[in-house]
Amino acid sequence: MSNKDRQFRPVAVPDVRVGGFWGKWQDAVCDATAEILLDRCVEAGMLQALDVRRANPGIVIPIQPWGGTTQMFWDSDLAKSIETIAYSLYRKPNPQLEARADDIIDMYERLQDKDGYVNSWFQRVQPDRRWTNLRDHHELYCAGHLIEAAVAYFQATGKRKLLDVMCRFADYMIGKFGHGEGQIAGYCGHQEIELALVKLARVTGEKKYLELSKFFIDERGQEPHFFTEEAIRDGRSPKDYIQKTYEYSQSHEPVRRQKKVVGHAVRAMYMYSGMADLATEYRDDTLTTALETLWDDLTTKQMYVTGGIGPSAKNEGFTDYYDLPNDTAYAETCASVALVFWASRMLGRGPNRRFADIMEQALYNGALTGLSLTGKTFFYDNPLESTGKHHRWKWHNCPCCPPNIARLVASVGAYMYGVAADEIAVHLYGESTARLELGGSNVTLRQVTNYPWDGKVSIRLELKEPRQFALSLRIPEWAEGASLSVNGGRIDLGAVMLDGYARIEREWTDGAEVSLDLPLTLRPQYANPKVRQDAGRVALMRGPLVYCAEEVDNGGDLSAIVVPEHLPETKTSIMRDLEDAVAVELPVEREDTQNWGEALYRSKPAARHEAKLRLVPYHLWDNRAPGEMLVWLQAEKRGA
Amino acid sequence: MSNKDRQFRPVAVPDVRVGGFWGKWQDAVCDATAEILLDRCVEAGMLQALDVRRANPGIVIPIQPWGGTTQMFWDSDLAKSIETIAYSLYRKPNPQLEARADDIIDMYERLQDKDGYVNSWFQRVQPDRRWTNLRDHHELYCAGHLIEAAVAYFQATGKRKLLDVMCRFADYMIGKFGHGEGQIAGYCGHQEIELALVKLARVTGEKKYLELSKFFIDERGQEPHFFTEEAIRDGRSPKDYIQKTYEYSQSHEPVRRQKKVVGHAVRAMYMYSGMADLATEYRDDTLTTALETLWDDLTTKQMYVTGGIGPSAKNEGFTDYYDLPNDTAYAETCASVALVFWASRMLGRGPNRRFADIMEQALYNGALTGLSLTGKTFFYDNPLESTGKHHRWKWHNCPCCPPNIARLVASVGAYMYGVAADEIAVHLYGESTARLELGGSNVTLRQVTNYPWDGKVSIRLELKEPRQFALSLRIPEWAEGASLSVNGGRIDLGAVMLDGYARIEREWTDGAEVSLDLPLTLRPQYANPKVRQDAGRVALMRGPLVYCAEEVDNGGDLSAIVVPEHLPETKTSIMRDLEDAVAVELPVEREDTQNWGEALYRSKPAARHEAKLRLVPYHLWDNRAPGEMLVWLQAEKRGA
Repeated sequence: MSNKDRQFRPVAVPDVRVGGFWGKWQDAVCDATAEILLDRCVEAGMLQALDVRRANPGIVIPIQPWGGTTQMFWDSDLAKSIETIAYSLYRKPNPQLEARADDIIDMYERLQDKDGYVNSWFQRVQPDRRWTNLRDHHELYCAGHLIEAAVAYFQATGKRKLLDVMCRFADYMIGKFGHGEGQIAGYCGHQEIELALVKLARVTGEKKYLELSKFFIDERGQEPHFFTEEAIRDGRSPKDYIQKTYEYSQSHEPVRRQKKVVGHAVRAMYMYSGMADLATEYRDDTLTTALETLWDDLTTKQMYVTGGIGPSAKNEGFTDYYDLPNDTAYAETCASVALVFWASRMLGRGPNRRFADIMEQALYNGALTGLSLTGKTFFYDNPLESTGKHHRWKWHNCPCCPPNIARLVASVGAYMYGVAADEIAVHLYGESTARLELGGSNVTLRQVTNYPWDGKVSIRLELKEPRQFALSLRIPEWAEGASLSVNGGRIDLGAVMLDGYARIEREWTDGAEVSLDLPLTLRPQYANPKVRQDAGRVALMRGPLVYCAEEVDNGGDLSAIVVPEHLPETKTSIMRDLEDAVAVELPVEREDTQNWGEALYRSKPAARHEAKLRLVPYHLWDNRAPGEMLVWLQAEKRGA
Repeated sequence: MSNKDRQFRPVAVPDVRVGGFWGKWQDAVCDATAEILLDRCVEAGMLQALDVRRANPGIVIPIQPWGGTTQMFWDSDLAKSIETIAYSLYRKPNPQLEARADDIIDMYERLQDKDGYVNSWFQRVQPDRRWTNLRDHHELYCAGHLIEAAVAYFQATGKRKLLDVMCRFADYMIGKFGHGEGQIAGYCGHQEIELALVKLARVTGEKKYLELSKFFIDERGQEPHFFTEEAIRDGRSPKDYIQKTYEYSQSHEPVRRQKKVVGHAVRAMYMYSGMADLATEYRDDTLTTALETLWDDLTTKQMYVTGGIGPSAKNEGFTDYYDLPNDTAYAETCASVALVFWASRMLGRGPNRRFADIMEQALYNGALTGLSLTGKTFFYDNPLESTGKHHRWKWHNCPCCPPNIARLVASVGAYMYGVAADEIAVHLYGESTARLELGGSNVTLRQVTNYPWDGKVSIRLELKEPRQFALSLRIPEWAEGASLSVNGGRIDLGAVMLDGYARIEREWTDGAEVSLDLPLTLRPQYANPKVRQDAGRVALMRGPLVYCAEEVDNGGDLSAIVVPEHLPETKTSIMRDLEDAVAVELPVEREDTQNWGEALYRSKPAARHEAKLRLVPYHLWDNRAPGEMLVWLQAEKRGA
C-alpha cells in the first residue's frame, strides 16, 4: 500500500492534552506568555488602529524603504496572540483573559466593512491603499492569521463570532480574487492565507475556501508577473523592488516548477505548508512531487542541525547551498516554527519519518529556543554560537516570533498524532492523552513517558470495543537499538517498518499496552564537509535534542574545547535550575589559553589539558547567566 | 646604550632605488596605476570642484547620515595620486604624466584663498561650511594629504609650487588653531594632518609645523570635548553622532592616556604615526610609552596574521579582543598601509624588530594584496577566506585604498633603511641601491637578493673613505638558523644582537661585503586559542609571506583540506603566471566531499584521502581565475 493513497486528518488541539515536558511549557504559556502577548500588543498601540470607537487612530508612521511598515501587519500579531489565548483557555480556563480576547474580537466585528473586508491598517490608517500593493502590504497575510485565530478560538471556546467575521471576509475574497472582470488575479507577497483557507475549509466543511487557496497557489509565479503589473498600475517602478528578486517571495516561477528553496524563509515555509495541505486535500501528486524535491533541497543543503533555517538577516532567508554560519545565523524562530508546520503537513499523505524526524528536530531546537523557561522573553534570531552578546528579548520591533512559538507550544499536542480512516500514527512522543476519532468511534491513547529526557514510552489504548486498525509508531532514524513490545510481546521491528514507522496492524482491544524504548545516547553529528563553517567541528545530540556548551557551566573560550572522536563515557545529571532538564557531562580536552604567551600567533599549537564538559539542551541556553554559547565544538581529528 | 637616545631620520624616497621583487611592483605603478589613479579621479568629477576656471562646479551631492559625503575628501584622493606620481616620476620620467600633475597643482594654486585656505569642496561646493564640522568634514585630513603630496613632489621633481601653496595653508592654520581669541581649539575627526605637518617640518626645517602637529595631538580628547562643543555651536545634537562614541576617532580621551586600540582603523594608525613622529622629534617618552602599550594591544590581540587590522565593516575598525572573523574581515587595505606607516615611525627611536617584523608582515600581506599584479585593479577589504565572490575592483565609491597602496609601493625603498648619526639600520631586505648620508659623508648600500623568494641577501658597501659606524641588520624573529658574515668572516649572532638586529659596529671600508642567510621554510602559525575563528586551524608562512590556498590550484571546498601537524617535506615551484612567484606544494589529507551521501549531518566524520596542496602568496590571490581562497586551513589535531 502506498502511503500517498491515505489521507491523514489533522488532530484538533483540544483533542490532545499534554503533560510532562510539554505540559510545563504549556503552563508557562498559560501563566505568562498568553497575557504578555496581549499586553505588549496593546502597548504597541495596536488597538488604536483596530478600535473604531476611537474616531482617529492617530498613527503617523513612515513607510520604510521596502514599501511598508511592520505596523501594517499588526493584525497578524493580534491574531496569533488570540490563537495562543484560545489554546491556553482550553488548557487553563481564564475568564479575564477570555474577556480581553472577546473584546478584541468585538472590535474586529465592529471594524468589518459591509462588504466583508477587515484590516485595521487599511481601513483606519491608509484606507486609500487597500489592495494596491499585495507584494509588500501583507493584507492577505493578516487575513490568514485572523482566520487561524478564528478557527482556534472556535475550537477552544465554541464561540463563532470571529469565525463568522472571517468567513464573511473569505467570501468577499472569493468575489475579489479571480480572472473575471474587475477581479484581482493576484496573491499575497507573504504567504499565509493559503494554509489558513485550508483550515477554514476543514472546520466549516466548505470546499470553496479550498478552491480559493488553490487559486492563490496556482497563480503564484505565473507570467505576466502579477507583482510587476501591480507595481506599474500603482505607479511604482518594478525595478525599484528592494528585494531585487521575486525569489524573495517564492513567486519567481510557478510553484510546481520550483526545485530550490529560496528567499524569505518564513514565506517559503508557509507556502509549502499550504501546498502540502492542498496536496493532501486534492491528492495532488504534482504538488507532492514538487514538495518532496524542495524538502530534500532544504534538509540536505540548507538546514542547521537545530532545524534552524534561513542563515541571512539581509533577506531573512536563504543564501547559498551549504552556507551555514553559526555566529551570525539568522535562523528566525518563526522559520523553525514554520518548518514544523510544513513537516507536519507533509504527513498528510501518510506517516514518514523523512518528514517527522525533521519536524521533531526543528520543534525541540530551532523553534523552542525562541521561548524562555518563564515564557516571558523571546529569541528572534538563533545563532549556534554566541560570544555572550545574544540575549532573549522582552519584545521586538517586528514581534512575529513571540506569538508564533507560543501558539506552537500551546498546540503541540496536535502535532503528535495523525489519524486516517483506519490508522493512527504517533509522530511525536511525550506525556499526553489523545482522544481520537477513528472512522466513527473513539480511541484514547495515553502516553506515559519522561521523553525527551528518557527514551522509554508506554502507550495505553482505550476503546469501547475491539477494532482492527493500524497503529504506526515513528522509530526515529537516530534511535539505534530501539525496541518495541505490544502487551509484553516483543515486536520484530524489521518486519513492521514502513517509511520509518513501526506499523502494527491488528485488532486492538481496550487496555492494550505498547512499550517503546528509544535509546538516548549522546551522539556526534558531523556536517557535510561542504559546510565550511562546521569543518573540523562536531555537534552533540541526545535523542531529538541538540546540546550546547554554555559559559555558565564551562567558563569562557568555548572554542578551545576539543571533543574526542570516540566519545568517552558520559554522565547525565538533572539540572534543577533548568526545570529538571537533563545535562550531559563528559571528559574532553581543552586548549590552554592561560599559558599561551604574549604573541597572538606562534608556530606551536596550544598545549592541551584534560577538562570536563557539561552540555545542556540548546533550547534552554541563556536561561541562566549570560555568556558564551557554542553548538559546534572542535572535534578531535586523527590522521588516516 | 638605550635605543631611545638615538634619532633615526627617515630616508627620502629618491635616495633608494629598488629592483627585483619591489622593482616589478614599482614598474606596475609607473606603467599603469599612476595614470589610472588620475584618470579615475578625473572621471569621478574631482576637477569640476577644483578648477576655478569653471564658474560653477555643478555638484549637488546629498549629505550622508554620517554628516558628510565621500566627495568631501576628493582633495585627498587627488593628493595621494599626485604623491604616487611623484614617486613614479623619480623611477621613470614621464613628461605627459608630470604635465598632468602640474596642471592640477596649478589649479590648487589658483584655488587658494588669499588667506592661504585651500579645499576644493569647502571653497567651491559648500563655502558656507568651512571649519564648521571638523568631526566629520575631513578638512584638515585633506590638507594633510596635500602636504604629503607637496613634499613628495618637491623631493622627486624639485618643483616647489605645491609645497609653497601648502606652506601658506599651514601658516594660515597656525593662526587659525589655538587657544587664542577667535582661534579654533580643535582637531580633525580623521587624523592625518599630524603626520603631514611633521613631514613638512622636516623638509622645510621649520619647527613651527611640528608645534602645530603637537597642538593637534595634545588637544585630542581633552574635556570639555571639542566635538561636542562644535556640534552645539553648529546646531547639531551631539547625541545624534552616528558613530555613537568618540572612540571612533580616538578622541575619547587624551592620547597619552589611551591604552586600547579602538575605533576606525585608519584614523588610529595615522594618529599613532603622527604621535611616533613627535615622540622621535621631541624625544617624548610620554608618547613613546603610550605608543608601546597601544602597539602591544594591537599586535597581540587585534591583528590578523596578514597584518590586516580592523575586522568590522560597520566602523571600518576594531571590535573586541581576539575577534578576527576571516570571511567577513574588513581589514581595509588602507589600514594595513597605515600600520606600515606607524611601524616605520616606531623605528625613529632605534631599530627594533618588535616593530619592523610587523611592518614587513603588514607590507607583504595585508597591504600589498590591495594591488593587482597589473597595477590596474584593487582590493578595498581583505578577507582571509572567500567563497569565490570577493574580487578586485576597478574603482571604489570611496577610492582611498588605490592611491594609498600605490604610494606605499612606489616609495617602499624609504621603508627599507633608517639612518642615525652613526648608524645605518637595514629594516627590510630586497634588491636595492641606497645612497645614504651618514654624518656628512655618503654611504651606498647595494643589496643583491631575490628576497622574499629566497633568503640569501648580499649587501655591498661603498664609501669614499673608511668610517666607524654601526650597521644594524634586522634578523626577523621567524628566521630560525639565520647566519651572517662580513667579508667572508662568520659573525656570532648571539654576540651582536640588539633588539632583534645584528648590530655590527666597526670601521667599514669601501667594498665591504655583508652576507646574510635567512632560512625560508614553510612554517605553521597557530592563533591564540582565544581567537575562536581560527580554532583548530593553521596558517602557513614562508619568510614574511602568508600563503593561501586558491581554488584555481586546488579545486573547491578548501575547508575540507587538513594540514598535518608535523609538516611533511615541501616542494617549491616558480609560478610563471604569477610573475615567477614561489608556490609551495605539500602532501595533505582531504575530507571526502564526493561520497559523503545525501544527509547534511551524520554520526561519522568524513573519510579522508591523500591530496596535494598548492599554496601561493596571499598578496597574489585573485590574480588568475576567480574562486575560493583560504588562509586558515584545518589543522590536524592529535590527542595528548
